[in-house]
Amino acid sequence: MVPHLTTSLTGPLQELERLVLDRRPEIEHWFRAQFAEHEVPFYSSVDLRNSGFKLAPVDTNLFPGGFNNLNPDFLPLCVHAAMSAVQKLCPDAERFVLVPENHTRNLFYLQNVATLKRILEGAGLAVRIGSLIPELAGPTEFTTAGGETLLLEPLRRSGNRVYLEDFDPCAVIVNNDLSAGIPPIFEGLEQTVVPHLVAGWSTRRKSQHFHAYDRVAEDFAKMLGIDPWLINPAFSQCGKVNFSEKEGEECLAANVEAVLGEVREKYAKYGIAEPPFAIVKADAGTYGMGIMTVRSVDDVRNLNRKTRNKMAVIKEGQPVHEVLIQEGVYSFESVEGFVAEPVVYMIDQFVVGGFYRVNTERGKDENLNAPGMSFRPLAFETDCHSPDCTGGAGAPPNRFYTYGVVARLAMLAAALEVEELVARSLERAPQAATA
Amino acid sequence: MVPHLTTSLTGPLQELERLVLDRRPEIEHWFRAQFAEHEVPFYSSVDLRNSGFKLAPVDTNLFPGGFNNLNPDFLPLCVHAAMSAVQKLCPDAERFVLVPENHTRNLFYLQNVATLKRILEGAGLAVRIGSLIPELAGPTEFTTAGGETLLLEPLRRSGNRVYLEDFDPCAVIVNNDLSAGIPPIFEGLEQTVVPHLVAGWSTRRKSQHFHAYDRVAEDFAKMLGIDPWLINPAFSQCGKVNFSEKEGEECLAANVEAVLGEVREKYAKYGIAEPPFAIVKADAGTYGMGIMTVRSVDDVRNLNRKTRNKMAVIKEGQPVHEVLIQEGVYSFESVEGFVAEPVVYMIDQFVVGGFYRVNTERGKDENLNAPGMSFRPLAFETDCHSPDCTGGAGAPPNRFYTYGVVARLAMLAAALEVEELVARSLERAPQAATA
Repeated sequence: MVPHLTTSLTGPLQELERLVLDRRPEIEHWFRAQFAEHEVPFYSSVDLRNSGFKLAPVDTNLFPGGFNNLNPDFLPLCVHAAMSAVQKLCPDAERFVLVPENHTRNLFYLQNVATLKRILEGAGLAVRIGSLIPELAGPTEFTTAGGETLLLEPLRRSGNRVYLEDFDPCAVIVNNDLSAGIPPIFEGLEQTVVPHLVAGWSTRRKSQHFHAYDRVAEDFAKMLGIDPWLINPAFSQCGKVNFSEKEGEECLAANVEAVLGEVREKYAKYGIAEPPFAIVKADAGTYGMGIMTVRSVDDVRNLNRKTRNKMAVIKEGQPVHEVLIQEGVYSFESVEGFVAEPVVYMIDQFVVGGFYRVNTERGKDENLNAPGMSFRPLAFETDCHSPDCTGGAGAPPNRFYTYGVVARLAMLAAALEVEELVARSLERAPQAATA
Repeated sequence: MVPHLTTSLTGPLQELERLVLDRRPEIEHWFRAQFAEHEVPFYSSVDLRNSGFKLAPVDTNLFPGGFNNLNPDFLPLCVHAAMSAVQKLCPDAERFVLVPENHTRNLFYLQNVATLKRILEGAGLAVRIGSLIPELAGPTEFTTAGGETLLLEPLRRSGNRVYLEDFDPCAVIVNNDLSAGIPPIFEGLEQTVVPHLVAGWSTRRKSQHFHAYDRVAEDFAKMLGIDPWLINPAFSQCGKVNFSEKEGEECLAANVEAVLGEVREKYAKYGIAEPPFAIVKADAGTYGMGIMTVRSVDDVRNLNRKTRNKMAVIKEGQPVHEVLIQEGVYSFESVEGFVAEPVVYMIDQFVVGGFYRVNTERGKDENLNAPGMSFRPLAFETDCHSPDCTGGAGAPPNRFYTYGVVARLAMLAAALEVEELVARSLERAPQAATA
């Protein structure tokens, strides 16, 4: 089953797909050169929005959950890709400790942890789960959504190493987005830690990611001879917002107007009749927290108390001062009448699968990854590296291949972004960062 | 469907499988270190024999045919692995010319070429087929066993490059084992050629491969604390044989006796009641030509004319002077009563699948890859990197994982062997070899 595109305006995207298929050797060659030059993330996932006239990444996650939603038939792809990632980033590691998020009540998340464990074990590693939950007194079994048993053990520290009881790992793999900052237990470790801790949300900024994506999309679009806007959402940022105190409203309004104006021009150029909209997001936010849809400047001028409270703090109670104002990309894909948004998963440089986030409660111009929102995952039926060149644009393997291309562009942007974050952290603390 | 092991003597192999599963992290770590140090072949296939008490490689092919026999569900694995191989060996290549064997009447072989083309295209390369057939006047379409159309074009040369009409490839991928020597059209090319041309059968020797395998198997067995014989067939060699002239019979007899004696001792040690046997093979041979089974010294003392003629020349009419005398490993796997022999396929460092060569006309102590012999391929049902640690030794995913481990040992031996061949060719012709 594949979502339907419920818009008649699919011309530009079909052209893009056709172009991507026809020039695949050139595109893959370009990726190889980029991946040889930049260290790709250990793993990543990218949320895409497909409006028929535009296909763009809207969020790139460097601590991806949701591996449980992938098509189980493609687990061997994940295993091969993990072997490749381990060979590149930590070839000497034999025993891994996997450090997940602290929320143990989300049984689907626990299933993701179990799936990740299985992938890493498939790559031939010994893997145990080290938890940061302060109140976890000892090894504790949890049952995942899939009915599997998962043993969480308290992560301990001795000298410059973390360990579990009777288990001295060679490397730490983090599946916790570090919203509350880098935990002291991770500071100055002698063990290899993947991904880089600077990729956590206490140091990462969405705006920095999309600045890097601007450069990547520009280069890629130049190669293909297309308007980069077709794969790149317009954005702006605002650094002095205080929703609780009603501060920074003018800055926000001006930036919303700038983004909507840019989109209006493009819509006019491409003959798109839908009204433009924008998404305001906390620049360091995640988990769909601190996000709102705005359709005009008025929408940010008279925020009610409820919305202001919703926007004021995000995960781990972090206050929001910096926001990203991003062009809203309509999601015109639907499954049984519900809006669907593709999420593409990568390990090392390989696209290992993806799924549709099908939301039964939200509209085509809303963020689908919202707290408390249930979504139905719909795994991609085929892998993302086997387009059917005899099939037309829009045929599922071809659409998935194109998704994989755009997702890899976002992943490449994340690689550039992490390079910058590492360089910055070295400037700040040259000694600590080499540890 | 999985072959049955038709022997009660499965104790030692079950122990080996158990050990391989239990110590997987250590084994994969060891492979990572080896693969970081040695350049693995672009692709390879390994014939294994499984006698229940022993699991050993008997032939390693560096220009593997038979990709058409793999489970099509695992094509994406091949594509990922090919992306990885290309990234390592020829990242700059965008257009490949694939040079196959000259036999166009074997429709299954043509299907293999079509499958390889699809894999390389999946990895994002532009691929066309360049044929060495002298009488191929122009581009000619052939129909494969699968009913696909395959366009073969005459390979041409201009200066230091090979090309096809309107197609200037960046790299040459050879799927022709070069039994008749390196064709002049390949000499001193400026384009990248994979695999190394020295891996062709005009320079390769089976004995050199198994000398390298001795070292690999020794190291691996030491790590696991097992008798290397369990994964390594005894062998000897003889360099002055002339079957037509009845020369070198004594040398052959002495070496057959030496190998059979060694096997007899091991069979006594492990309580194996079967009679030992040996396989005499042309040291540079392939395609199952120039091979015979011997059960005693008498078998090589009184060769009749028919056998001598059969042994005297191999593919491309090459005369046989050097032979390998290899311990025969019983194949106690059977499918519906017929002998089955697993063949494992690798691209880059990854096991991408395999199949059983099921021979309806041959016995458990004969070579199954014989000319004119029809075999039924039976694709492996699961991949080779997903053992089921909760299942017992002998469960299909576990048996396949063990096959993949032993096949990778043989592939590593091939890597060492090619290193030696390259070093030797550099000694002989320092200028030519750098071209």
